[in-house]
Amino acid sequence: MSTKSRLDTLPTPALILDTERLDRNLARLSSRMAGFGVTLRPHMKTVKSIDAARHVFPDGPGPITVSTMAEAEYFAGHGFRDMTYAVGLAPHTAERAMRLRKDGVAIKLLLDTVEQAHILGQAGQAAGVTPAAFIEIDCDGHRGGMRIDDPKLIEVAAALKEGGVRLAGVLTHAGESYGLNTPEALEAAAENERAVAVEAATRLRAAGHECPIVSVGSTPTAHFAKSLEGVTEMRAGVYMLFDLVMHGVGVCSTDDLALSVLATVIGKRPEKGWIMIDAGWMALSRDRGTAAQRVDQGYGLVTDIAGKIYPDLLVAQASQEHGTLAIRSGSSASLPDLPVGTKLRILPNHACATGAQHESYHVVSGPDGTVTAEWPRIRGW
Amino acid sequence: MSTKSRLDTLPTPALILDTERLDRNLARLSSRMAGFGVTLRPHMKTVKSIDAARHVFPDGPGPITVSTMAEAEYFAGHGFRDMTYAVGLAPHTAERAMRLRKDGVAIKLLLDTVEQAHILGQAGQAAGVTPAAFIEIDCDGHRGGMRIDDPKLIEVAAALKEGGVRLAGVLTHAGESYGLNTPEALEAAAENERAVAVEAATRLRAAGHECPIVSVGSTPTAHFAKSLEGVTEMRAGVYMLFDLVMHGVGVCSTDDLALSVLATVIGKRPEKGWIMIDAGWMALSRDRGTAAQRVDQGYGLVTDIAGKIYPDLLVAQASQEHGTLAIRSGSSASLPDLPVGTKLRILPNHACATGAQHESYHVVSGPDGTVTAEWPRIRGW
Repeated sequence: MSTKSRLDTLPTPALILDTERLDRNLARLSSRMAGFGVTLRPHMKTVKSIDAARHVFPDGPGPITVSTMAEAEYFAGHGFRDMTYAVGLAPHTAERAMRLRKDGVAIKLLLDTVEQAHILGQAGQAAGVTPAAFIEIDCDGHRGGMRIDDPKLIEVAAALKEGGVRLAGVLTHAGESYGLNTPEALEAAAENERAVAVEAATRLRAAGHECPIVSVGSTPTAHFAKSLEGVTEMRAGVYMLFDLVMHGVGVCSTDDLALSVLATVIGKRPEKGWIMIDAGWMALSRDRGTAAQRVDQGYGLVTDIAGKIYPDLLVAQASQEHGTLAIRSGSSASLPDLPVGTKLRILPNHACATGAQHESYHVVSGPDGTVTAEWPRIRGW
Repeated sequence: MSTKSRLDTLPTPALILDTERLDRNLARLSSRMAGFGVTLRPHMKTVKSIDAARHVFPDGPGPITVSTMAEAEYFAGHGFRDMTYAVGLAPHTAERAMRLRKDGVAIKLLLDTVEQAHILGQAGQAAGVTPAAFIEIDCDGHRGGMRIDDPKLIEVAAALKEGGVRLAGVLTHAGESYGLNTPEALEAAAENERAVAVEAATRLRAAGHECPIVSVGSTPTAHFAKSLEGVTEMRAGVYMLFDLVMHGVGVCSTDDLALSVLATVIGKRPEKGWIMIDAGWMALSRDRGTAAQRVDQGYGLVTDIAGKIYPDLLVAQASQEHGTLAIRSGSSASLPDLPVGTKLRILPNHACATGAQHESYHVVSGPDGTVTAEWPRIRGW
């Protein structure tokens, strides 16, 4: 007998990561991007773990995307030297980034206003380093960024130059692709993302600005792009773990979901058709991303401890530490008979949100229930 | 000048706790329960902080409710000796609880099946201690518990006796009260919760079981009960901090909200009517509890750094690290002009969920912006 623990003896709720699925998901997108000759710059906001990052980059640190300065500092501390902080900058993040820049980290920031160009120029000057920044481009009205026909696009580039900031390139994110669910629509979203980013770079170059990187990305468009002509790099994060939202979009099967939450049955209400478990929204997150999709998965799908899905059994309701399992409305499946103490696993709606509720991953590989490692996750800002 | 930091220099996003409001909220329910002669057993799942607990109990540890064994062990480590773990027990939680029991902690567990009575009896026997348990009663079909007319009520009590488990009493939770919003409906829910709990105790006593504690509670019913006759203790948690859901229920005003998230403006899309901030769902949580209420507050209401509400300005959308501010649909208010770098505060939908996204509280007292302390929060299970 190994001294390693097994899933059936772990205290619950607990976050489980299946590296067999992780590695398969990583290989799928890596080989897709290699086929296009495009650099993959994975977004670490999903896994927030150096151990997971080592599966992404088995040969040593590569280019990454981060969502917080805490991630930037953590990965820099583990030897990562090429990163993009893909959230609009503010004075305090610019200052922190310049400390990393001074330590030799090629950190690139993101902005879409002349104001921010001035803030970054001043932060660079104060720190005695040359900052680098992407101009954020809006390709689908999802969030931040400039439209390519906005005359400020050239003004921002000029303000960067004047402030001594190097223009790293243009960056866009097809966030609206999360709301799609047909190959045709996803291919069109990917082509739009590509075309807008390339056009933005073309306009900047025509105005005399070097624009070395053309960065696009979202997990759906990364998997459905038919051409990436003119694009130099792809960003994606949730593709490493996948989740029910991505399954609803049509990017993965439920067998690709590398993340789950181990839970225990703590009660039954057969007269109501309910089974109570010890995983509520604290363990699963409040994310209800599938509510807007064709198939609403509640707070998640339920599997047995080996990962086999119970047909139409959902986490129908969640309070802080209680989950209520019930059969999907309209289904003829019957509620399984599960004694108190039975261990189950929940496949989550949104891997980034569910992962963030936990301190660490308990790592398994495939259907074998041996826990081979515990990987810490980072949090905070 | 003090060496203490100020709100306007804190890195963002950051969790802010106003102790002036906390203390006022604590005094309000304490004095209400003192008037009824009922013990208040506050639920620590909301604050998860020994420093906050010291405001609740300035004269030393008192009776508490906890939602995880991690909370139980943490508060026991800080001298708390009387606690109820108000989640249905499983074998592993029973074992952990018996270790606390052995250390002299009067921890009471919760169950509603004969199966669980056996599990707890065996755990007590294995540890050589006498466990104590509440029978959970369902007063409104919300979640777990037994209906009072279920013949198993007496069977469970008998199984406890046979297994050497002391019956602590009955416990119910009017969870459906969160969906109400008129004083009449809240008073009726409180009276129902009281009457059901008292009737359950009466039935157990008539069957020859001692039933010393009659425990009820939810923040709405705690504040609207007109009689607590027969009840011996009240549990409530979110009343300490309050939030927009409780405001929508009608339990508090926005001036009572003790928790907020400090954020920074990181971009603007005036043509869309948007302001971007660095607080997304990672800082605010995915909780959208006000979506089902009469007034949907998006992901939260926006105030200036001093806590003054901007009329009808909401966090309309949230992605992982981005919040999008917009004026409430249908309002004639206009979008304020806020430069990049402006600090704001967000009043959250659900204090328990938003608090859980952060490592610590930055403590202020009233509108003065001095940060007087940083209080760690615990997490995990």
